[in-house]
Amino acid sequence: MMRTRPLKVALLGCGVVGSEVARIMTTHADDLAARIGAPVELAGVAVRRPSKVREGIPAELVTTDATALVKRGDIDVVVEVIGGIEPARSLITTAFEYGASVVSANKALLAQDGAALHAAAEDHDADLYYEAAVAGAIPLIRPLRESLAGDKVNRVLGIVNGTTNFILDKMDSTGAGYQEALDEATALGYAEADPTADVEGFDAAAKAAILAGIAFHTRVRLDDVYREGMTEVTAADFASAKEMGCTIKLLAICERAEDGASVTARVHPAMIPLTHPLASVRGAYNAVFVESDASGQLMFYGPGAGGAPTASAVLGDLVAVCRNRLNGATGPGESAYAALPVSGMGDVVTRYHISLDVADKPGVLAQVATVFAEHGVSIDTVRQQGKDGEASLVVVTHRASDAALSGTVEALRKLDTVRGVASIMRVEGE
Amino acid sequence: MMRTRPLKVALLGCGVVGSEVARIMTTHADDLAARIGAPVELAGVAVRRPSKVREGIPAELVTTDATALVKRGDIDVVVEVIGGIEPARSLITTAFEYGASVVSANKALLAQDGAALHAAAEDHDADLYYEAAVAGAIPLIRPLRESLAGDKVNRVLGIVNGTTNFILDKMDSTGAGYQEALDEATALGYAEADPTADVEGFDAAAKAAILAGIAFHTRVRLDDVYREGMTEVTAADFASAKEMGCTIKLLAICERAEDGASVTARVHPAMIPLTHPLASVRGAYNAVFVESDASGQLMFYGPGAGGAPTASAVLGDLVAVCRNRLNGATGPGESAYAALPVSGMGDVVTRYHISLDVADKPGVLAQVATVFAEHGVSIDTVRQQGKDGEASLVVVTHRASDAALSGTVEALRKLDTVRGVASIMRVEGE
Repeated sequence: MMRTRPLKVALLGCGVVGSEVARIMTTHADDLAARIGAPVELAGVAVRRPSKVREGIPAELVTTDATALVKRGDIDVVVEVIGGIEPARSLITTAFEYGASVVSANKALLAQDGAALHAAAEDHDADLYYEAAVAGAIPLIRPLRESLAGDKVNRVLGIVNGTTNFILDKMDSTGAGYQEALDEATALGYAEADPTADVEGFDAAAKAAILAGIAFHTRVRLDDVYREGMTEVTAADFASAKEMGCTIKLLAICERAEDGASVTARVHPAMIPLTHPLASVRGAYNAVFVESDASGQLMFYGPGAGGAPTASAVLGDLVAVCRNRLNGATGPGESAYAALPVSGMGDVVTRYHISLDVADKPGVLAQVATVFAEHGVSIDTVRQQGKDGEASLVVVTHRASDAALSGTVEALRKLDTVRGVASIMRVEGE
Repeated sequence: MMRTRPLKVALLGCGVVGSEVARIMTTHADDLAARIGAPVELAGVAVRRPSKVREGIPAELVTTDATALVKRGDIDVVVEVIGGIEPARSLITTAFEYGASVVSANKALLAQDGAALHAAAEDHDADLYYEAAVAGAIPLIRPLRESLAGDKVNRVLGIVNGTTNFILDKMDSTGAGYQEALDEATALGYAEADPTADVEGFDAAAKAAILAGIAFHTRVRLDDVYREGMTEVTAADFASAKEMGCTIKLLAICERAEDGASVTARVHPAMIPLTHPLASVRGAYNAVFVESDASGQLMFYGPGAGGAPTASAVLGDLVAVCRNRLNGATGPGESAYAALPVSGMGDVVTRYHISLDVADKPGVLAQVATVFAEHGVSIDTVRQQGKDGEASLVVVTHRASDAALSGTVEALRKLDTVRGVASIMRVEGE
């Protein structure tokens, strides 16, 4: 039953992920052929620096002309692991025009231009798969798109960036400050020399956009995602979290509004209870928690980055796309029929943990409580700690909109008795 | 782009799962149609007791003649949620003969006759999907079969039975004995009146057979699975586990031998370290841990049973099968090309925790240690506790084959100084 003419694969990019893809395609060629129903052949590898020695990849396959490789006309599948917007976008579009399907690991591009790329794939009866774009090896896109296709997803709550989880876990377990934990992450290779994309939440925001779109069958772009980094999380915040039986994680949160008429997507640090399955996700691991009408609570856990894990996701997609090609069919494409509006942060409803530095005198609590009440934000607990004429007030609220909370904080800052707002942290996962 | 002629679905069984499938097909009809690309219509529901009132299901759809329903000739997909071997097997086979694809939640049937059913599906160019057969709503079969299709799975370690996990979790957290915890599980509806299938590991063994077959691309039947129930786990075992920084779970374990030339599948209670992600799976939840060459360690967590979660898995399959039908294609079928032999329990290599009741006199430890050495079982730690002329000896071994351990225990029983073997528990997940 095995077809003997091989399917031809063009690999764009041969860095950490690409070299693993090439390696596994060689070492596991027999398994891949058996699972696909036809052999797959690495037909060409486009790189920037051809002089670099690439073990196991025949020199004659290596080219610096990615466009020519994609335009060869005999390529069945283009695997894009270059990253970034250009030239990846043009190459993928060209691949579709020349009849190939595409497997990509490019979260930034998919988050920004997913709709246009899906349309291009559909125009040419081709597949666009990108399991590796979100949370490395963890199967997420396929479960959300296929396994949960008969369910209604209401919330996705995920740790989707390994670098920041490593840093926060280190702060939690050792009491270290942000800079110290970042330095260790850098030394160990978990953080890049310029960690901005990770610590400011840009990477997680791209993944949130992709997850929200798939989960809610609607279109969510990177610009729709509210984003707050985790560089201002302090050891004091972790101490407060511990007192509440919580830890702090950088979360990507995609939610359907309670009336079902809109969705939100956001990335920010948040306190979550230690009893929540996401709280025990350690080190550089990723995990995504999905809440649906019928299936209840599911969690998917694993390595969110790294050459081999990401290559595993790429190859799973490659097998699927090759099978589709042999079947003369395509897999599920973009599903954005729900066309729900994406609301801004003001509409998000959650709980808040607020630390205030206040004057240590009678009546302060009453003043503060009045401000919360005037803005319709209901207080769950208050804790006062006084020392040497100064005092701190820790307020945990019931569920309130971000807009109401912002109004409250603005008003609190105007009180003479409030010397400063030390921190505001959302509380999730309850 | 939407096809207007609906796909017709025959539902076999309308119990806890079937009624949820019918309900969601009605309440979420628009979503299902949008995701499939054509409407789906409930064409008939086969039940045993037609007199029972079934909310939301028109009486004219209900029939007691499942065979006639399957033979109607216009059915696109048969959803089988009857369970058990017959009549489910005959109905599924008939469904294929009459041109339908099949979605099933029937773990017992798939574990026993999966190969024949897959062959029947293939003969008729039909799909056989059964995500709901293993661990309810948790996407497992699709991730193993598709997401990890480019990877090499080496081990699957799962909590795949909610009833026994509830009982063991209760024993762990309250110090209760087995019977007391079982009684509570029964009172709360987590255990059936006759809990044999759960507590003796039959249910988990069927799931282990299915998971092992898919993970290793080989054929594993229920009879190939070694099975030990958890009725003999005691409060004392939990106390021993705690001293080791472990808890006890009933695990389904599917492993590739280190030389890759064979596989094993087994179900038994085992100690696992508290730091292992499976250790914190509480109550009736399920979770499956998968170790692969490239992706490393993945875990899938969620509700392993219940009407709505299982229906979610059934409907995810229904959407996929309907899409395949519209595409004129079929999804991945059985993949058993690896054709690996399934080894018996004697070949399994793991660690062991053994409690011995021994005479409290000098030289006992030396005698016992000699027996272990003679059988090639290396000791990791020994702890002696003496009281009133009696003593206990707790031995934790390094990795050894089950055959070597069995030989050791047999020889230990023959020692005059060993009064009894109080417990033997495997240690996994390290």
